[in-house]
Amino acid sequence: MPKVKFLPYEVEVESEPGETIIETAMRTGIHINASCGGMGVCNKCKVIVEEGKVKGEKIEGEFYKACTLIPLTDVVIRIPVESEVDRRALFRKPKKFATAFLRKREEGAPVPIYQTSLLSLEKPTIEDNTSDWLRLKRALFQKGFKNLNIGLDTLRKLPNELRKGDFKVNVSIYEDPRTGYKFVGDVKADADSGMALGVAIDLGTTTLQLEIVDLVSGKTLAQTSDYNPQISYGEDVISRIEFAKKEGRLKILGEKVRERLYKLMLELIKVTGRSIEDVGIVSVAGNTVMSHLFLEVEPRFLREYPYVPATVEFPLIPAEKLGWKLRDGAVVILSPCVASYVGGDITAGVMASLLAEEPELTLFIDLGTNGEIVIGNKEFMMCAACSAGPAFEGGGIKHGMRATIGAIEAVSINPSTYEPMILTIGRRKPKGLCGSGIISLLANLFITGLIDKAGKFRRDLNHPRIRKGEDGWEYVLVWKENSATGQDIVFTEADIENLIRAKGAMFAGYQILLESVGLSLNDLERVFLAGTFGSFIDLEEAITIGLLPDLPREKFYFLGNTSLQGAKKALLYKENFLKMHEIAKMMTHVELSNHPRYMDYYTAALFLPHTNENLFPSVKFLNRS
Amino acid sequence: MPKVKFLPYEVEVESEPGETIIETAMRTGIHINASCGGMGVCNKCKVIVEEGKVKGEKIEGEFYKACTLIPLTDVVIRIPVESEVDRRALFRKPKKFATAFLRKREEGAPVPIYQTSLLSLEKPTIEDNTSDWLRLKRALFQKGFKNLNIGLDTLRKLPNELRKGDFKVNVSIYEDPRTGYKFVGDVKADADSGMALGVAIDLGTTTLQLEIVDLVSGKTLAQTSDYNPQISYGEDVISRIEFAKKEGRLKILGEKVRERLYKLMLELIKVTGRSIEDVGIVSVAGNTVMSHLFLEVEPRFLREYPYVPATVEFPLIPAEKLGWKLRDGAVVILSPCVASYVGGDITAGVMASLLAEEPELTLFIDLGTNGEIVIGNKEFMMCAACSAGPAFEGGGIKHGMRATIGAIEAVSINPSTYEPMILTIGRRKPKGLCGSGIISLLANLFITGLIDKAGKFRRDLNHPRIRKGEDGWEYVLVWKENSATGQDIVFTEADIENLIRAKGAMFAGYQILLESVGLSLNDLERVFLAGTFGSFIDLEEAITIGLLPDLPREKFYFLGNTSLQGAKKALLYKENFLKMHEIAKMMTHVELSNHPRYMDYYTAALFLPHTNENLFPSVKFLNRS
Repeated sequence: MPKVKFLPYEVEVESEPGETIIETAMRTGIHINASCGGMGVCNKCKVIVEEGKVKGEKIEGEFYKACTLIPLTDVVIRIPVESEVDRRALFRKPKKFATAFLRKREEGAPVPIYQTSLLSLEKPTIEDNTSDWLRLKRALFQKGFKNLNIGLDTLRKLPNELRKGDFKVNVSIYEDPRTGYKFVGDVKADADSGMALGVAIDLGTTTLQLEIVDLVSGKTLAQTSDYNPQISYGEDVISRIEFAKKEGRLKILGEKVRERLYKLMLELIKVTGRSIEDVGIVSVAGNTVMSHLFLEVEPRFLREYPYVPATVEFPLIPAEKLGWKLRDGAVVILSPCVASYVGGDITAGVMASLLAEEPELTLFIDLGTNGEIVIGNKEFMMCAACSAGPAFEGGGIKHGMRATIGAIEAVSINPSTYEPMILTIGRRKPKGLCGSGIISLLANLFITGLIDKAGKFRRDLNHPRIRKGEDGWEYVLVWKENSATGQDIVFTEADIENLIRAKGAMFAGYQILLESVGLSLNDLERVFLAGTFGSFIDLEEAITIGLLPDLPREKFYFLGNTSLQGAKKALLYKENFLKMHEIAKMMTHVELSNHPRYMDYYTAALFLPHTNENLFPSVKFLNRS
Repeated sequence: MPKVKFLPYEVEVESEPGETIIETAMRTGIHINASCGGMGVCNKCKVIVEEGKVKGEKIEGEFYKACTLIPLTDVVIRIPVESEVDRRALFRKPKKFATAFLRKREEGAPVPIYQTSLLSLEKPTIEDNTSDWLRLKRALFQKGFKNLNIGLDTLRKLPNELRKGDFKVNVSIYEDPRTGYKFVGDVKADADSGMALGVAIDLGTTTLQLEIVDLVSGKTLAQTSDYNPQISYGEDVISRIEFAKKEGRLKILGEKVRERLYKLMLELIKVTGRSIEDVGIVSVAGNTVMSHLFLEVEPRFLREYPYVPATVEFPLIPAEKLGWKLRDGAVVILSPCVASYVGGDITAGVMASLLAEEPELTLFIDLGTNGEIVIGNKEFMMCAACSAGPAFEGGGIKHGMRATIGAIEAVSINPSTYEPMILTIGRRKPKGLCGSGIISLLANLFITGLIDKAGKFRRDLNHPRIRKGEDGWEYVLVWKENSATGQDIVFTEADIENLIRAKGAMFAGYQILLESVGLSLNDLERVFLAGTFGSFIDLEEAITIGLLPDLPREKFYFLGNTSLQGAKKALLYKENFLKMHEIAKMMTHVELSNHPRYMDYYTAALFLPHTNENLFPSVKFLNRS
């Protein structure tokens, strides 16, 4: 890819495919004024192309719109004086991605709990007229399958399928590796029917992510994502549990999400050119509430003291029972949960990260809708749910929103002019702030000194963007002329308070878990950031606000959607499915709200970045206030 | 009970409860003329009461109607000269009944594959907020249940049932002893809900027999029987297989019989004063075709060469899947089959008879709609289905009928006058002949010399009852004035031919099975007669016609409905369920039609009682022809 050199900072960075100069600048920490979110209408993001070939719109004279500019060769870009330097421009972000990081434990071909086997049975004769089922068992025994069971539906198909295929058949075999229970789930005359497919699902409170996986090669054939339609009945798990309390509503929640997932599976399977009847297994990882709702298992007691799940491990469930028409006899597996608020997404994620198989003391953080954390290594694991609330997902934030098109996902504030540079998802007119944008904005307000350690705005600036609005003091991020809503997009002190409480809850969680095993932050050898959201936040910004501990940057690893990765790994290797269960059993769950020292730690974390500045050595000199 | 002494024969016998003198006489082999079947209208069965008190109708002077006469004290009854002595009157029948004969292997309380357990769980606290399912498993573990599974439906009920019962619950636990697979099938808040009930079913081609059994005491609470409604779609298994060939019809057959069985269960449960929701398990024993039809498993290949069943052993089947609403999670078990025409009724029967656990060489005969035989002991077992056809059930017999009200079930012919004495089921006007009546009539015709060894009528008698009718020579058993149909009830030479073929097939079967293990009839130490039909036939008559081997009478045992007994034993003891499977595997099935010497044996048996008179030493002097 072409290299982009930014002047006057002499910063050089490799462009990413299709990336515009403003995106490269934001990613690299170079400030360019921009108000329209990258949509190409505000004409503020002007830059000069000093060398190289580009594609993009000119504004006037030598100026291009950075938000339209794509380098065709190596280029040198000069940022005009209007977009003055951000002091953090020289930080190089140490993001490491999951794909690069995660070693594969498995090396051979997949060994899933669902296998298909092509069999040529000996045809019956009068001397050997043993029953169809015993004949099939005999052939499977020769292939190493022992002690097999069969259900009535398969028994009903068996005689005609055998004869349709002239005693050549494709057989589905399932094994529950937890109990050793094995059964034949399907028999098909068409011995040449396609290889077995599986679907891995991350069942998120907000987002559903799916992959169709070839169980023979282990390759992902297609992937997609969509919102969880349960959102219409409640943004967070609590409101959905409340919704489900009335007669018939649990069923609605279950059916809605299963219908959506099935629709997505059908869409995906089209992409692969295969048949939905090739899908013999689905692996689902979701938090405890989502797992209960998905199965229509009573969730009410998850949030009533003393917070008891109906179950934390799940039987193999016939897909048919969930209303999914896949291959006959198809089965759904779910990742096991640990407690009411540490679910299968975490066990799947920990399994995928190999945390439980390596000696390094690791802090695993899932910054999803809930904030779950795990501390441990292959010797021990402690876990907790931090009641961080939904602030990092935009909940309880005046102009907060989900990470959809038009959401501001990154912010930079010019420390001299206090003018912002923003980027929106989809590069449309801004509608509001999503999680990464919120963290980004809070960090920028703090670094530029627009707020103090307590999160209060400077009252003395007399700057048009710092004002007392209807909800108290606020920063105007986008003027109404540039917003998609026709209203100013602002960020209030109340918003900041919510965020400080949320990050304080997380930080206190790290400390309690470490203390409970007699360790401290400095003992951490690695920090794993899990979840899609985790992948979009800026490490420096997150440390700046005290959401993440201030440790050497090379200790941080962005793992991406580990829940999905875990669901996929469980799909491909029955060992991994078992491993998740070991992990779930091995994890000691700490009920934070119940911990005697929790409130102390929490209160101490209600500053930016923390009351104890020694915990944030690299942050303390940043704030100018 | 009062004793009845018959003069002039000086035969004394104990009366049975409610038995009339004509019934006592028939049972004892004393001939009294009677034409109306015991209904009390023909006035032919007159007897004189010489001593004792009786209840009953007088005809004239000192004569009573024997068909109305019940002894109140010990009585002496004189048979008038009109009803002359039958030479067989002095035979005392060595019937031994199952109840008297069968030792019980099990001595302790029942140990079924389905158990209920009353549990008081520890209530959750914040220190012990493990999930409901793990809490339940923990409590069950303490009661000795390990490695338990749970289905989605039970999981869905669990949280609310636990709390409704304040953590006291009644739990259903199932175990498949063949694989060790165990699962919780239901959880009920009502810890005091009744003890577990089970239903044992003999699924016959013609008749359904049910018992409701208390699984704690092992006692039968109620029993009933009814016709198999599949009869409307075909009298025998072959015609039902043919019927089932067209689209949708297998479903009809399955549903019809399951609906009828469910209706019978509801009727029975009413009698017990219990609830259908107390029934947690149903044990079914039926022949291979009936088992296939019951489950709607393709039966077509059972009768196509090389006669391959879809299956001979059956998974535990959720009752719900069969449309039966019983206790949640209730399960249906079926007795395993051996081959297409040796089914679960036989393995159940052999298990119940203890044949497979004792050293005596035993011939087990089930004279149901099909004729299945087993020869063996605890060391080995050979089995075969004799294609005897339905003659013994009245099929292919001109006035043959099923054993219902109005069917002639016993016949005696006066050897001098050739006048018959008949008894009908229900003591109504005769409609036709059922199996036992047919055997009885055939034996009497032979003994009295009315037919010869080849089954041909004496042409020279010039007796009104022996005539050439529209279907050839025949015996008129009931004149139309006395029949319920308004027609003469006759028995033709064609009927006799059919019967001789049927009994010949059975007898050849005994011989082939014995020969295949190098033994002969004289090596037999016991003969077990199974099936309801078997219990109604007269041993002497059956030997007389060559249907049963002519062995010392004390070797014969009438076991009654061993299929039902076996279904019940499998219900009460999982060991018995396993034992049936061992039996099924241990049995060597001999395909008679395929055996090189079968035709020789069969042809030799096509005489009364046999071409080789030495095989029937006690019969040869009876025939006067």
